Amino acid sequence: MTAALKRNTQNLTEEEIFDAHAGGKLSIASTRPLRDMRDLSLSYTPGVAKVCEAIAVDPEVARTHTGVGNTVAVISDGSAVLGLGDIGPQASLPVMEGKAQLFSAFAGLKSVPIVLDTQDVDELVETIARLAPSFGAINLEDISAPRCFEIERRLIERLDIPVMHDDQHGTAVVILAALRNSLKLLGRELAGLKIVISGAGAAGVATVDMLTNAGATDIIVLDSRGVIQKDRTDLSPTKQALAAKTNPRNVTGGVNEAFENAELFIGVSGGSIGEEAVKLMAPQPIIFTLANPTPEIDPEISRKYAAIVATGRSDLPNQINNVLAFPGIFAGALAAKATNITPEMKLAAADAIASIVADELEPGCIVPEAIDGRVAPAVKAAVQAAAEAQGA
Amino acid sequence: MTAALKRNTQNLTEEEIFDAHAGGKLSIASTRPLRDMRDLSLSYTPGVAKVCEAIAVDPEVARTHTGVGNTVAVISDGSAVLGLGDIGPQASLPVMEGKAQLFSAFAGLKSVPIVLDTQDVDELVETIARLAPSFGAINLEDISAPRCFEIERRLIERLDIPVMHDDQHGTAVVILAALRNSLKLLGRELAGLKIVISGAGAAGVATVDMLTNAGATDIIVLDSRGVIQKDRTDLSPTKQALAAKTNPRNVTGGVNEAFENAELFIGVSGGSIGEEAVKLMAPQPIIFTLANPTPEIDPEISRKYAAIVATGRSDLPNQINNVLAFPGIFAGALAAKATNITPEMKLAAADAIASIVADELEPGCIVPEAIDGRVAPAVKAAVQAAAEAQGA
Repeated sequence: MTAALKRNTQNLTEEEIFDAHAGGKLSIASTRPLRDMRDLSLSYTPGVAKVCEAIAVDPEVARTHTGVGNTVAVISDGSAVLGLGDIGPQASLPVMEGKAQLFSAFAGLKSVPIVLDTQDVDELVETIARLAPSFGAINLEDISAPRCFEIERRLIERLDIPVMHDDQHGTAVVILAALRNSLKLLGRELAGLKIVISGAGAAGVATVDMLTNAGATDIIVLDSRGVIQKDRTDLSPTKQALAAKTNPRNVTGGVNEAFENAELFIGVSGGSIGEEAVKLMAPQPIIFTLANPTPEIDPEISRKYAAIVATGRSDLPNQINNVLAFPGIFAGALAAKATNITPEMKLAAADAIASIVADELEPGCIVPEAIDGRVAPAVKAAVQAAAEAQGA
Repeated sequence: MTAALKRNTQNLTEEEIFDAHAGGKLSIASTRPLRDMRDLSLSYTPGVAKVCEAIAVDPEVARTHTGVGNTVAVISDGSAVLGLGDIGPQASLPVMEGKAQLFSAFAGLKSVPIVLDTQDVDELVETIARLAPSFGAINLEDISAPRCFEIERRLIERLDIPVMHDDQHGTAVVILAALRNSLKLLGRELAGLKIVISGAGAAGVATVDMLTNAGATDIIVLDSRGVIQKDRTDLSPTKQALAAKTNPRNVTGGVNEAFENAELFIGVSGGSIGEEAVKLMAPQPIIFTLANPTPEIDPEISRKYAAIVATGRSDLPNQINNVLAFPGIFAGALAAKATNITPEMKLAAADAIASIVADELEPGCIVPEAIDGRVAPAVKAAVQAAAEAQGA
């Protein structure tokens, strides 16, 4: 581990971190003053009854005259929180509050953190469906695989508001944005590109779908036991589905077999891959290692071999951070009154993120910085346009 | 209906009301700026992980370093909204947002409106229990009787945070406050006072308990079929319980029999009672008619007979409005880290509300105005002290 890598956390003191969390990180307040009885009569009884009656007659009024038109719930069961794992609902709350801060700061959306005291799939689906009328969209967060796939699928089927598990799709969108710009810089094509993805969890599965939708044709996925391929008898249903849609050359074996002549590596696993494997890649490969704080391949080794390197870390160039995606995706979906977040909307988001740095493109600048204020409005506009074109 | 009564809604235009609701009535934002990567690292990854870990080790850290220490959920199923009845979850959202505004404006608490897409008692209890870790306390709102009694009871048993159905207890607390000052003004005693309550719903049941806890000994409750008493064969379990703890003189019959020599009438029913019944009351009675917008007894008739008259309307003297109670009750319970809202805490709240107008006491000023900024801090202090004295 280099000095630069350690700096990431070393320059934050515990005192500063706890100060930044004291009392919670969100404010919730009335948008209007309540100074006199007239104010009270407008916002509360008797005036409020007029708005309730209007919604009872026309549910669309809820979108314009309550918070649901611009409020996203950030919902977790605390089962897969950051790198910390299954720490339970209340210990995950600081992450959900942080996400709500980002929705507000980057996309001007209101966002409510909700953590649930169950990890049962049926109970989670029922609970989230029951509280859905309170919100305009649902951002599922830090729910462990493979439960996250079924929970998201069932909620999308059941609800008529956008539902997205950000650990899957937010990450996949930013990976595709980074990849678009990498290929542009290097003059390469996505079709036929030899891609290895390490990790068959939430981000891995979504990235396979995202890259396939974008035109990728040669993806190999690694799990902890090696290359995922049809003949393996130890595959979960999720991995059987992956085996069916990846690995067209039917590669078998482990990391070394997968890395042989690979042109792009995407690490979303948290494992560790050594220099011997990296040496086997095609010349001047692209390497995205997203594990945080410890990338799957030491960045010094990545830089030694690769034409372009990206990580998940904020103290290194090319940080792949899903804050680039989710605020604008939800803002665009809500602006379009979309009932769903479609693959086309996600592809539009990736293109919008990539376009932001079109004029500054270089191997050390393939994605905007996480705090780049231009990103969310551009993503919002692109996602809204895609949704409206599609009638999503 | 008098001109003064109509004024209540006539001076609000629909345009003003809808303008006051456009986009929702709450703002939700980050408490701290997110200007640069350092801000992001403090509030979100990697800094946030330190706080998550601290909560996983010591859950008490959630109270100080997330919103749960000062956030109240306002939860409804939309089954008994204002006088509108069962209008469903989303149509009830403006009321819940209004309540959240009041929590913020009067007690400085954060509050989140949650409306649930089920009216099944078991499902409501399960759903609310599962989302409880997101909040510091739960204000149940506009849930129809008798379901509200079981839902509240089961949640209080199950959760270790304060749960209160405001339509029951908030109303009962303000009624007791108004009654304390009325009795003080008139030099009368609560013990032995002949009390008639019209309405055996949420507010009626809670008011019986509240007044009994305060020392009342002679309460008669009326429902739509007359006096509730032990020999009636048409009583629900809730009303059987009322029959067991009220009506010590075993009065039978209807409104006229109940009103015979009554010294206090409390209307929480929405029915209509004529002058003939009022004439039967003891001389100079106390009359509280809370139905809104149409009091159970025309205020002009009440004024003709009664020493003191209170209503639920903001355009008449002595408005009994539960905004006097709930912000301070929840603020006090949260400040005391109470796991419950006990009868003693509610009695303390009533006394605090009554005390605010001790120096201004007259028949037209037995409770503070709903927007009186002195009330919530006084109620909070009294409730916190009661909770701490009791170890609630």
